[in-house]
Amino acid sequence: MPFVERLFAVVRQAGNPVVVGIDPRPEELPAGFLDQFPGDPPGVAEALRRFGCEVLDVVAGLVPAVKFQCAFYEAYGPPGVAAMHATAAAARQKGLIVILDGKRNDIGSTAEAYARGYLGKVPIGPAYAPSWHADALTVNPYLGSDGVLPFVKVAAREEKGVFVLVRTSNASAGEFQDLMAQGQPLYRHVADRLRQWAAPHANAAGYSLVGAVVGATYPGQLAELRQALPGILFLVPGYGTQGASARDVAAAFDAHGHGALINSSRGLTFAYERPAFRARFADRWQSAIDQAVRDMIEDLAANTNAGRLRLGS
Amino acid sequence: MPFVERLFAVVRQAGNPVVVGIDPRPEELPAGFLDQFPGDPPGVAEALRRFGCEVLDVVAGLVPAVKFQCAFYEAYGPPGVAAMHATAAAARQKGLIVILDGKRNDIGSTAEAYARGYLGKVPIGPAYAPSWHADALTVNPYLGSDGVLPFVKVAAREEKGVFVLVRTSNASAGEFQDLMAQGQPLYRHVADRLRQWAAPHANAAGYSLVGAVVGATYPGQLAELRQALPGILFLVPGYGTQGASARDVAAAFDAHGHGALINSSRGLTFAYERPAFRARFADRWQSAIDQAVRDMIEDLAANTNAGRLRLGS
Repeated sequence: MPFVERLFAVVRQAGNPVVVGIDPRPEELPAGFLDQFPGDPPGVAEALRRFGCEVLDVVAGLVPAVKFQCAFYEAYGPPGVAAMHATAAAARQKGLIVILDGKRNDIGSTAEAYARGYLGKVPIGPAYAPSWHADALTVNPYLGSDGVLPFVKVAAREEKGVFVLVRTSNASAGEFQDLMAQGQPLYRHVADRLRQWAAPHANAAGYSLVGAVVGATYPGQLAELRQALPGILFLVPGYGTQGASARDVAAAFDAHGHGALINSSRGLTFAYERPAFRARFADRWQSAIDQAVRDMIEDLAANTNAGRLRLGS
Repeated sequence: MPFVERLFAVVRQAGNPVVVGIDPRPEELPAGFLDQFPGDPPGVAEALRRFGCEVLDVVAGLVPAVKFQCAFYEAYGPPGVAAMHATAAAARQKGLIVILDGKRNDIGSTAEAYARGYLGKVPIGPAYAPSWHADALTVNPYLGSDGVLPFVKVAAREEKGVFVLVRTSNASAGEFQDLMAQGQPLYRHVADRLRQWAAPHANAAGYSLVGAVVGATYPGQLAELRQALPGILFLVPGYGTQGASARDVAAAFDAHGHGALINSSRGLTFAYERPAFRARFADRWQSAIDQAVRDMIEDLAANTNAGRLRLGS
């Protein structure tokens, strides 16, 4: 099934657009968790894998998708990458949509190697076989079409998705992204190109496998980009720990409550660190994560029109 | 020893500024090479490792540095990444400077996780230990200072280097990088920020651990950026297969023949595919690579002022 149809079906089934971001910082794992593993890179990697799989056990059935932040796994070298690979495979087995947040970028056949590796198939022996099994990958657009279209080509062939950074959620995002050129900021130029990249791959409902990363921490620009990019899926970071509220992300959805995935990472997976959760759940950290995810689902239902998804529409 | 001093010493010793780019495309390995390995991901990964190490045996002692293109390893999942890790370690043992071409980018503590992983140390047990041992990493600047300074901070602490994409070598590089904002193209805005990021880390000779990636395929812009960025190391892709000549890259060097590394990837490591080399070396593919590297060194010596390096200055 094509990526957009698969994603919409899973969102409809879950009844919410929440993406749980899995960014396993070793220093924020539950108290005592790391101590169960050997103090070497394979041991830390195994801790990351075990933690990620425990998070999956909590959130599968609650949310439609998870997003893995590659940095925290790659930091531990090959065993770390193996831990991400195994956790991503477990997520897919649980029916979750798997987004790899690698912000990859390169040109021509190099971009295609990333795309084939993460989203498609690579030559192995006489045949082609999948390597990573991800559903979607984040991509950085600085290199222009040469750096993005190879990802789109592979995603289209393999029924996968691509999310292109347009307006990021960080404080210095505007240094380059807001520079005014020919009457509009750089991020709008990126958005214009993104429409071109996405258009050939739009489905009957107008949605394309080429999506956009648009931070929730700049709600005005989020609303502006929703208008400028009808039919573009938004992957929206910034809710929760980064400071954006449900009202801030409301503009990411279309009139039907569709078209956006709202990510929260630390605010969900490290909820047990917050005093209110610690007071209520003590060392039952899985329960703290479960509650934080349910709170986020409720918050979005109450304050955005994605709440309609809960009615099965 | 700080990165810049280490790099300059190795360049002086080699007498040339050549970086051998190791981009192991399985379909371009020497005839019969892949057949020696099992037709599964670990088998292909082992072929990539073995090929990379054979390339190192040829080029160590000839050139100062190698650059690994992460995409071709990551495409094979955890075993591919393990192959890159092992080949990079072998390169360092041979005294080569190791540049990882990952074009990484993210914000805040996530960027720091990449930086600590690839350039620095990560928490393992009660201590911090290195994971990747690379000397330098390429970084994409689209996210602004938040996305670059964590890499710079870790590199400064660990005596490593960072190369920030400024003007890339691909055909569509200009789509965003050439957009005119406030009277200058985007890539000049990136260059201006890069000077700020680099300045606190300049050594006595004025060179900083924060370098720039500037493609050789746009020689006019390369010359312009050399003027605009005194004291910034340039990592210059585009020589050879991508079309740039030694005369095109001449402007990358400062008045002393310093300050630039010239990369060639396919043109060197897959030299045996070119008819002239095939005719001369047949299946002695290592000899073809050796000759291609020597040809490039001679070409740069004859057509750029980096030739002075050969005199030991």
